[in-house]
Amino acid sequence: MSLVFHYAPWSSATTCLWALEELGVPCEKVKVDLAKKQTQTPEFLAMNPNGKVPLLVHDGVPIFESVAILCHLGETFGVQKKLFPEPGLQRAQAFQWLVWMNVSLGAAVYKSMQDSENTPAELRSPKLAAVGRGEAEKLLGMLDAHLEGKTWMVGDGFTLVDVHLAGAAVWIGGLGFDLKTWPRVDAWAKRCQDRPAFSAAMKG
Amino acid sequence: MSLVFHYAPWSSATTCLWALEELGVPCEKVKVDLAKKQTQTPEFLAMNPNGKVPLLVHDGVPIFESVAILCHLGETFGVQKKLFPEPGLQRAQAFQWLVWMNVSLGAAVYKSMQDSENTPAELRSPKLAAVGRGEAEKLLGMLDAHLEGKTWMVGDGFTLVDVHLAGAAVWIGGLGFDLKTWPRVDAWAKRCQDRPAFSAAMKG
Repeated sequence: MSLVFHYAPWSSATTCLWALEELGVPCEKVKVDLAKKQTQTPEFLAMNPNGKVPLLVHDGVPIFESVAILCHLGETFGVQKKLFPEPGLQRAQAFQWLVWMNVSLGAAVYKSMQDSENTPAELRSPKLAAVGRGEAEKLLGMLDAHLEGKTWMVGDGFTLVDVHLAGAAVWIGGLGFDLKTWPRVDAWAKRCQDRPAFSAAMKG
Repeated sequence: MSLVFHYAPWSSATTCLWALEELGVPCEKVKVDLAKKQTQTPEFLAMNPNGKVPLLVHDGVPIFESVAILCHLGETFGVQKKLFPEPGLQRAQAFQWLVWMNVSLGAAVYKSMQDSENTPAELRSPKLAAVGRGEAEKLLGMLDAHLEGKTWMVGDGFTLVDVHLAGAAVWIGGLGFDLKTWPRVDAWAKRCQDRPAFSAAMKG
C-alpha cells in the first residue's frame, strides 16, 4: 500500500494533513509551492486536472477534493481506529457535515471575502461580501446549535468530521469572524485543536 | 426501514430523486412548495436547520446536502445493485466526482449567474459572472477530457455518479451553457437521460 499526499501549508489541504496525522498511516508528504505554480505543471495536472491541492495518490490512483479524500481515508483507515463511523446512519451524518462545510458554509465564507485584498479590485463587491458574511454567520449559528450538549460533531467520539470542521473554523476565525460569538463552536474548536495531531499538521 | 424524501421539482433535489428511482427502494416522497416557504417552517427546520431540500429522513434520522444523500444511498442500497462502487479506490473516485460537482463546478456555475435576473440588482456583477463562466467552461472541459474513451464516469457501469453529474449537466445546459461545445459531455449526458428512471424523476 502506498500513499502520497500533495499539499500546501495553510490551504484547504490542511484538514487532510491533520486527518493523516490522526490516522497515523504511513504516507509520503509532498509540499507544493503555490507561488511557483507547482499545481499547474503538466506532471501535476496529469494527476489532478483541477490543478489544486490537496491531492492524495493511493496505490497510484489520484484522488482530489478534500471532502472526498476525507471520506476515503475515513472509510479505509478510520473505522478501525474509531475516527470514522461504520456504514449506517452515523456515517450518513458524517457525509452530511463534511459536505455541508464545503458546499454551504465554505461557499458563504468565500462570498464574504468578495471585498478582501485577495479579490482583484474590479471584482470586489462590498454588498455581496455583506450578504456572504450574513449567510456565514447564520450557518455558524446552526453549527453552534448542533453542538449544544455535544462534545463532538457526530456520535460519542472525536472523528474526521471534527478534524475537517474544526480545521475550517481556524480558517474562518482567521478571516475576521470572532468565534467567541458562537461559544459552543469556540469551545469545541479549541478542544479539537488541543490534539497533538493538530499541532503536528500545523508544522506542515 | 423507512425512507421519506423531501424535494422540490427542478431543484438540487432532482438528482437524489433520480437516484431513488434508479435504486427502486420504497420511499415516501414529500413535495415541498418553495414559493410557500415550506422549508422555513419550524417543523422543517427541526429536521433540516439548513432550511433546504433535498432532505432524506431514514429511519427518523434526517440527512441533508445532496452529495451526502447520494453517498449514503449509494453505500446503503447501491452496491448490491451495481449502482455504487464497493469500498476501495473506485468508491474514492465516486466521492471525488460527486464532491467536485458541488464544490468546484457548481460554485463556478453559481458565480456565472451573478448577473442573472435571479440575482438582486444591487448584487449583480457582470465581471464576476464572466469569471464564473470562464471557470465553469474550463471545468466542463475537464469533464469532457475525463470522459474520453469512457461510457460512464467511474468504472465500467452506470452509477449514481452519472446520475448526479448528468443531472447537473441538464441544469447547466438550461443556464445557457451549450453542452455541444463539449461533445463527450453532451453524448454521455444524453446517454444518462435515456434511462427510464430519469424520465420518472423529471415527472417529480
